[in-house]
Amino acid sequence: MSASETVEVTGHLMDSGILSAILDDIREYDGDYIIDRFDVGHEAADTSRAQITVTAEDDEALQRLLMRLQTRGVNQVHPGEATFTEADMDGVFPDGFYSTTNLETKVRIEGRWYDVENPEMDCGLVVEAQGDGYRVYTLPMSDVRTGMLVICSASGVRVSIPVADKSSASFGFMESDVSSEKPQAVLVRQVAEGMREARAAGKKVLWVGGPGVVHTGAAPAMVALVKAGFVDVLFAGNALATHDIESSLYGTSLGIDLTMGQGVEHGHEHHIRALNTIRKAGSIKDAVDQGVLTGGIMHALVTEGKKFVLVGSVRDDGPLPDVHTDVIEGQRAMRAELQDVGFCLMVATMLHSVATGNILPASIPLVCVDINPATVTKLADRGSSHARGIVTDVGLFLEQLALELVPDYRRA
Amino acid sequence: MSASETVEVTGHLMDSGILSAILDDIREYDGDYIIDRFDVGHEAADTSRAQITVTAEDDEALQRLLMRLQTRGVNQVHPGEATFTEADMDGVFPDGFYSTTNLETKVRIEGRWYDVENPEMDCGLVVEAQGDGYRVYTLPMSDVRTGMLVICSASGVRVSIPVADKSSASFGFMESDVSSEKPQAVLVRQVAEGMREARAAGKKVLWVGGPGVVHTGAAPAMVALVKAGFVDVLFAGNALATHDIESSLYGTSLGIDLTMGQGVEHGHEHHIRALNTIRKAGSIKDAVDQGVLTGGIMHALVTEGKKFVLVGSVRDDGPLPDVHTDVIEGQRAMRAELQDVGFCLMVATMLHSVATGNILPASIPLVCVDINPATVTKLADRGSSHARGIVTDVGLFLEQLALELVPDYRRA
Amino acid sequence: MSASETVEVTGHLMDSGILSAILDDIREYDGDYIIDRFDVGHEAADTSRAQITVTAEDDEALQRLLMRLQTRGVNQVHPGEATFTEADMDGVFPDGFYSTTNLETKVRIEGRWYDVENPEMDCGLVVEAQGDGYRVYTLPMSDVRTGMLVICSASGVRVSIPVADKSSASFGFMESDVSSEKPQAVLVRQVAEGMREARAAGKKVLWVGGPGVVHTGAAPAMVALVKAGFVDVLFAGNALATHDIESSLYGTSLGIDLTMGQGVEHGHEHHIRALNTIRKAGSIKDAVDQGVLTGGIMHALVTEGKKFVLVGSVRDDGPLPDVHTDVIEGQRAMRAELQDVGFCLMVATMLHSVATGNILPASIPLVCVDINPATVTKLADRGSSHARGIVTDVGLFLEQLALELVPDYRRA
Amino acid sequence: MSASETVEVTGHLMDSGILSAILDDIREYDGDYIIDRFDVGHEAADTSRAQITVTAEDDEALQRLLMRLQTRGVNQVHPGEATFTEADMDGVFPDGFYSTTNLETKVRIEGRWYDVENPEMDCGLVVEAQGDGYRVYTLPMSDVRTGMLVICSASGVRVSIPVADKSSASFGFMESDVSSEKPQAVLVRQVAEGMREARAAGKKVLWVGGPGVVHTGAAPAMVALVKAGFVDVLFAGNALATHDIESSLYGTSLGIDLTMGQGVEHGHEHHIRALNTIRKAGSIKDAVDQGVLTGGIMHALVTEGKKFVLVGSVRDDGPLPDVHTDVIEGQRAMRAELQDVGFCLMVATMLHSVATGNILPASIPLVCVDINPATVTKLADRGSSHARGIVTDVGLFLEQLALELVPDYRRA
Repeated sequence: MSASETVEVTGHLMDSGILSAILDDIREYDGDYIIDRFDVGHEAADTSRAQITVTAEDDEALQRLLMRLQTRGVNQVHPGEATFTEADMDGVFPDGFYSTTNLETKVRIEGRWYDVENPEMDCGLVVEAQGDGYRVYTLPMSDVRTGMLVICSASGVRVSIPVADKSSASFGFMESDVSSEKPQAVLVRQVAEGMREARAAGKKVLWVGGPGVVHTGAAPAMVALVKAGFVDVLFAGNALATHDIESSLYGTSLGIDLTMGQGVEHGHEHHIRALNTIRKAGSIKDAVDQGVLTGGIMHALVTEGKKFVLVGSVRDDGPLPDVHTDVIEGQRAMRAELQDVGFCLMVATMLHSVATGNILPASIPLVCVDINPATVTKLADRGSSHARGIVTDVGLFLEQLALELVPDYRRA
Repeated sequence: MSASETVEVTGHLMDSGILSAILDDIREYDGDYIIDRFDVGHEAADTSRAQITVTAEDDEALQRLLMRLQTRGVNQVHPGEATFTEADMDGVFPDGFYSTTNLETKVRIEGRWYDVENPEMDCGLVVEAQGDGYRVYTLPMSDVRTGMLVICSASGVRVSIPVADKSSASFGFMESDVSSEKPQAVLVRQVAEGMREARAAGKKVLWVGGPGVVHTGAAPAMVALVKAGFVDVLFAGNALATHDIESSLYGTSLGIDLTMGQGVEHGHEHHIRALNTIRKAGSIKDAVDQGVLTGGIMHALVTEGKKFVLVGSVRDDGPLPDVHTDVIEGQRAMRAELQDVGFCLMVATMLHSVATGNILPASIPLVCVDINPATVTKLADRGSSHARGIVTDVGLFLEQLALELVPDYRRA
Repeated sequence: MSASETVEVTGHLMDSGILSAILDDIREYDGDYIIDRFDVGHEAADTSRAQITVTAEDDEALQRLLMRLQTRGVNQVHPGEATFTEADMDGVFPDGFYSTTNLETKVRIEGRWYDVENPEMDCGLVVEAQGDGYRVYTLPMSDVRTGMLVICSASGVRVSIPVADKSSASFGFMESDVSSEKPQAVLVRQVAEGMREARAAGKKVLWVGGPGVVHTGAAPAMVALVKAGFVDVLFAGNALATHDIESSLYGTSLGIDLTMGQGVEHGHEHHIRALNTIRKAGSIKDAVDQGVLTGGIMHALVTEGKKFVLVGSVRDDGPLPDVHTDVIEGQRAMRAELQDVGFCLMVATMLHSVATGNILPASIPLVCVDINPATVTKLADRGSSHARGIVTDVGLFLEQLALELVPDYRRA
Repeated sequence: MSASETVEVTGHLMDSGILSAILDDIREYDGDYIIDRFDVGHEAADTSRAQITVTAEDDEALQRLLMRLQTRGVNQVHPGEATFTEADMDGVFPDGFYSTTNLETKVRIEGRWYDVENPEMDCGLVVEAQGDGYRVYTLPMSDVRTGMLVICSASGVRVSIPVADKSSASFGFMESDVSSEKPQAVLVRQVAEGMREARAAGKKVLWVGGPGVVHTGAAPAMVALVKAGFVDVLFAGNALATHDIESSLYGTSLGIDLTMGQGVEHGHEHHIRALNTIRKAGSIKDAVDQGVLTGGIMHALVTEGKKFVLVGSVRDDGPLPDVHTDVIEGQRAMRAELQDVGFCLMVATMLHSVATGNILPASIPLVCVDINPATVTKLADRGSSHARGIVTDVGLFLEQLALELVPDYRRA
């Protein structure tokens, strides 16, 4: 027997394409709909409000469709109460668990709404008694333990989608928008402004970087930005750190002569020796303290007291002693640094950008810079719909960004 | 004071560009050279032989240059004896350790030549007494333990480069060669022939795959190839296996309706539920045994008794219980399956292709298929110089490969 | 003083994103709007209808905005009468001329609606007396002559947007949709079905091709498709024809050995001689008649009596005697072949695909196949919004297409 | 009966890979060879000299192989005398015509060597009596007329290949080398230095540009470079000029708001009106003189008295009145501006870059900048082997180039 529910959504529904996406979702889930009411904004600045009755084959299908629609900011008109089930295995959610979005979320328990801690997508929601009420927080599948209370079905869950502000002068459009044919100097200024605003608001600037930062010769620019306080945390892999360190120790990076700009094909041997040198020192910080490592991005992060989280991958040599070789441990270490992040810049890495996009709340401004359009597209496809993609040269972009943000930055 | 050594190299030096690469290497390492003798092959089929005296700033620089030249198949005329040093820390090689190539390698100890076990690049060479002689084997940096004897300097080490056979009818040119403008049907036949030859020689066929195999609709072709015995081992990540399983459980893969070919944008929620289902079952094999998983690539591998090694990455959801979350453990699991591999096909994954290229001996034929030229180029740049790249559509390529290799394969 | 007009649009406004695009347009043209009425389709199959009053700075700005909105299928509620002005220079439209869309268009003159002949975008509309009424036809800027009557402003012009049929089984979604992660075998079948339908309806199949058709080894597949009647007209440049002919005369194409699949780097000299040979013969047909040219795509087109239009570009060698060296003449020759085209397949060429997209009515199904996503994206960006892009390997795609459409097609 | 000839080549044969390429050529042409002598450079700075006897099936095959080898700088030891044949048709070379390289070439007639005027590849060589001797010049196929004397076979023709200077500080390596992983700031400086050197030597700087120059917001930088004297000639198509003019007239370019950096999807209507406006004025210069066009790149070229050659393509709207619609006429107009060019920069256009590469002598330094690696690769594949490719963002590259070359250049 079919099941149905009435839902509502508010916002710039038409000009942001949300309503179109909602109806696509319903079709994809083999559901049906009737639009009960549609209060359209009459003038350009008004918001619209739609009320839709959705129908699915059975209650299980309906619940899954309702969860799906929440990724669009759609809520039930009569939200009801959250229902929860005890996990009966470590690392496994109960059937029908609520699969989270990365939006701000509230859960109603015993008639009272609770804010969900740490919004993150593709997690479960765990409920714990706290004082005379409850706390509700996101938990990834691998961390659930027997006996935890996990919310099931979409009942009692509300989300709010951040309002895209198309007319904002400083950091205009945040919708996913991938193009290499954009006036690039303007984009540099918008990113600079986004970082200044985050800092002015007392928030942290998170960088996610790949080895291309070093290969394109952008390390000096990034070092200047670290010293000027525009890099609070760096998420990266073994490669960025190793190439940066190799470059400091040997003046090369995977065989590119940085002072001459002339290509050096392989030279992997430098790479291996750089790894061995840091392993011998004990850690990157130990290498700095011992005077072994005296320059580069990692050196700047250590001396400026900034954080970095390096997570390994199956292609790693070494790795550096600071690298989390267990990727699930690495994800936990990344999550631990997200507190108070107010702006996120991703440069030249698909792997770590997607990984960060997976755990970042939708409310944090996010810019992804890569010369490869596929990286930015992939990021957008994974649900980080507020990512803004800039297809450009990472080396020249960071050079310009340093010129914009660091008053005394001079090209060598 | 400068140090010098006389080296030699034999082969089709000019037409394979090796000599040019050697002289580039010497310049890159700030060395100098005199070509003492150059016996050129006078006719097309003849090999050439060059003897060169190389000079570097000091002995340390010279040893590093000599190791570098060994990646080109260059050996010392007077190889001398291997020298070795005891490792005095876990996970750290002694200074001046010999950094390996992926070529067949021999080491001379007490006047006798020993074959190196498991050629792999960017490793150290460890010596152990065995019977009245020694065994020598490659060991990655992270696995070295205090007290092990590690070969230092290039002294006493010989390599042999596999001869590229340009005129072979079946699997013609193996040099790195990336192009999307090649007659593609011919390339499919050459890959098919390479697999048949490996199987005829009693060797295993290794596949390395990314989720694009599922997204492009190639899963049925790959299932047919598994059943026909052309897939002995699969190296992949959490994504290929999850999307394949999601596709079997829900008929979708990251939101693509496979029977209609119509795009479904996200649908990540299916993905998360598929992971939870397999975690609940215990493992992929358990899910097959319990009748939970009844189709797809992973199902075919289980029911045909084939091997797979899944190694995680920082972007993983879940992951599946079969996934190695520690990447260094994952590398060890991959190495354990390389025995008797006679052909390797890499499809639609940069991460796992590079990881496999890192541990594979140069003597194994290797073909990398991807729609993205950067993947193949990257693979070639990492030292897998015998990789052959084919820039093409993975879905249509595997469809054609199944038509070529599986007599009764029919498109549905 | 500001000017305003009330417009209306009907269709699946929300789920096709049209309304969102309309409101974006108004903002881009610095206009303002009030949504007077919005009758939403309540159930999935219903169409919606919106009535909007748009305001612009002055009448000139308003007219330009109204023309812009017509590309979205938006018409004035009170269309009024067309106004026209005499052109007073050859090759120049009067100020304020109506700039056409590629949609079906009607023009009202003296209270009567006339169908516009040959819908084509970025043209003017010319009115001529005919019988007791008028004819109205599109004309490109370069063809306008002094004294012609050209429609100015949006008054009296109506367009109808073709309805996208998302649920059609045969050729499902026609919206612009670029992806290399689609089940490719399904897409091949949909293209085959589109061609069969066009032929069944007595329509012509138009191909637009680049030299990649030859380079990827797809010439035999295309020859088979020509002979089986699935290629009625070919639009191409000098390169496709020359490489095809070079391949027939010398067995090479820009230096690729087609039987071995082994790359041949340059060999441009063959290319130049092939051009000289055909120029000596007089034309491609002459070369076929004289027995000089005995195989390949161009040979098949000649012997099967099919049409081709070759238009030159600044990078051409030669060119072949059949090539239109004047690009405006070439465009005219292409337009002359559009009559009764019912399906258009574009393969491996950005230049000629965009050129064809410029002159093709929106009502003709259009599929663009290229390994380069930029080609397909570019096509969509130029206004051919009904183009469907398939990012795949042209060689394997045409191989599969021949297997699908030509019963006795066998790979050699 | 087979035919053979002894040839020689001098240079850095091994480290530049020339010898390898020569032997590949011989194999590709089904020839055979014996290396008679090979005087290898013993030290790094020495040049090598090889003498090779090549054999082919018959004299015709031999002659074609000899012509092919000349593209590598290989000459006959006994060059003999040039032989020539009268053309007996307009636009057609005699059989066996010598197909030119883009290298410096000399021809021996009656025992005397003559320099070939205007080296250009894929042309014929025409001989005319002049004074008591001769002049010899390149002529494209389409320009040959009945009665002209055209050199046939490789006899009597010598070429000299420019020496690549790998160690030069200013503009180091000129070999084809495509990569996006290069220190980009260094590359900008090298291009700036190349332009300064050309100007210091009294040579012209040729630019070849596509519309991406405007789309990426680089027009202000290019205007500054025009005014500072670093742009003497521009080769482009209708698109660059139209988008530049549209941007000046309407502040948009294919729908991108340049001051906000926010994307505007289509807006082709501006584009068409801009074309009409300039056609009405008569020409770009007329529009400047009439005060219609007051800014942008084309305006700067006109007011600074610089040259531009615009050549049309089949995808053009309009076109602008200055555009050569006949592509062969357009090629002639481009050739007429090559005199005294000392440096060539190609930005953001595949079509015009390849066209220019076709007619440019090999001796002119050539840099191709594009975000799309395929453009640069294509250029290199077409024989412009001295092209240096830089895969980067055109907007940021030109911004940096202006900062480097124009003392008072400030970002707005």
